Amino acid sequence: MKLIRHGELNKEKPGVIINEVYYDASAFGEDFNESFFETGGLARLQNFVEENKDKLSPLAEGTRLGSPVARPSKIVCIGLNYADHAKESNAALPPEPVLFMKSTTSLVGPYDDIIIPRNSVKTDWEVELAFVIGKKASYVEEAGAMDYVAGYCLHNDVSEREFQLERSGTWDKGKGCDTFAPVGPFLATPDEVADPHNLRLWLKVNGETMQDGNTNNFIFKIPFLISYLSQFMTLLPGDIISTGTPAGVGLGMNPPVYLKPGDVVELGIDGLGTSTQNVRAYAKN
Amino acid sequence: MKLIRHGELNKEKPGVIINEVYYDASAFGEDFNESFFETGGLARLQNFVEENKDKLSPLAEGTRLGSPVARPSKIVCIGLNYADHAKESNAALPPEPVLFMKSTTSLVGPYDDIIIPRNSVKTDWEVELAFVIGKKASYVEEAGAMDYVAGYCLHNDVSEREFQLERSGTWDKGKGCDTFAPVGPFLATPDEVADPHNLRLWLKVNGETMQDGNTNNFIFKIPFLISYLSQFMTLLPGDIISTGTPAGVGLGMNPPVYLKPGDVVELGIDGLGTSTQNVRAYAKN
Repeated sequence: MKLIRHGELNKEKPGVIINEVYYDASAFGEDFNESFFETGGLARLQNFVEENKDKLSPLAEGTRLGSPVARPSKIVCIGLNYADHAKESNAALPPEPVLFMKSTTSLVGPYDDIIIPRNSVKTDWEVELAFVIGKKASYVEEAGAMDYVAGYCLHNDVSEREFQLERSGTWDKGKGCDTFAPVGPFLATPDEVADPHNLRLWLKVNGETMQDGNTNNFIFKIPFLISYLSQFMTLLPGDIISTGTPAGVGLGMNPPVYLKPGDVVELGIDGLGTSTQNVRAYAKN
Repeated sequence: MKLIRHGELNKEKPGVIINEVYYDASAFGEDFNESFFETGGLARLQNFVEENKDKLSPLAEGTRLGSPVARPSKIVCIGLNYADHAKESNAALPPEPVLFMKSTTSLVGPYDDIIIPRNSVKTDWEVELAFVIGKKASYVEEAGAMDYVAGYCLHNDVSEREFQLERSGTWDKGKGCDTFAPVGPFLATPDEVADPHNLRLWLKVNGETMQDGNTNNFIFKIPFLISYLSQFMTLLPGDIISTGTPAGVGLGMNPPVYLKPGDVVELGIDGLGTSTQNVRAYAKN
């Protein structure tokens, strides 16, 4: 299955993609949130779709897509999980996964604008494979860890490098600004993804390819990451885990290149669709 | 007002303290969560208490207290906000606030056990003044920032120093383990706290005083912190912000001293009550 959420920000309704057509599934009556994943919602949705697929309406042209999962309890990210990106960041290869958290208020839809924060001069891009937790995970063994994955999605781990690296303290300061986590267009359940460890992922800025990598270059693979993270914190159903970015971020250029208002960012992963964000400056409402 | 939540973990019911008696307020019918704070819940609760105070029942002896606020969208903490603690941690005085996040799954009640994580040898204590956000805060000016505070509470920012400092990456790895955020016993609204910048706070382990400080030693005060944090992420109603710990943590001892099963941690802040946690080892259920 491919799950979508559509409509106004923070009021999204459920939907599904069938044969590449985006359908409204408001009648399903549940949001794709912690409770949904925790209580077997994917199976309920599957049944709903089978029973109702002839009655579903395609989304109207121009309907906004939201993140395919509702605001989770947390967004946990892995840093430096591709050797080439560690090198361009002048960072040593990590002996074990680097983790940080994005404020969940950063979550937006795949075609929403990226807003450059006030006083930001180093807003950067990071195409990433994200996965969503399907059941509560605490001290999980690596062997059975893939059973905890509810699905996969495309994520742009937008990052403010000055806030992240030059403003005292942890990376969290540069990772959780509003709009810094465009996710989607859809959540693909594991049966839709032949091998999450062999997916090409890419990102362009204004049509120019900046990142072009493959998840087969992960330093730490998904079962290890789930087992590892679950030693330090309990992962809840619906939590978004993002697996790191390959080489080609703005920070790694010589000289560095950062996003500016008017830029267009496009990104994609094999089988998980593409997304596009227009970049604009913060403007007080 | 002094707000409490009582009953089973993750199923807590609302309550209030009146003249030092703990009352059930289940009939109020709302949890103290994001929606409560966002929609003027404090005023509704005040009205409810005024109209019903003669009908409220005291809590039964032995009733568990939970965190006085429900699981928030985030727990944001300030590191090294007391000069004496920065010194004992061998850390430079930060030129601007250090921030990190605790996984919200770490939140527990004031008398719940602290569970030492599997493979932990450096679990430490940190008494802190926490405050709770009352309304959505984005790019808030320092001048009006105190209007965003819904109340204050006692927090033990339990920390695993090896996970935090020696295991690659950000502090988040050692801050969000289950039970690492005992909060409460109660949330005191601002009218109950004469001056949040002049509160004595202390912590004992097995009856021995380890920390004895005062919030008048903050490097960065609350209005500045709210303004500062809100430049980097949107703070939501119900979010918990913890303001850092004074000197006297286990990491700062020579040699360092860490918690072990059987230890008893007691802590308190002027006007915000005291809490007690028994320390035990992780045991698989």
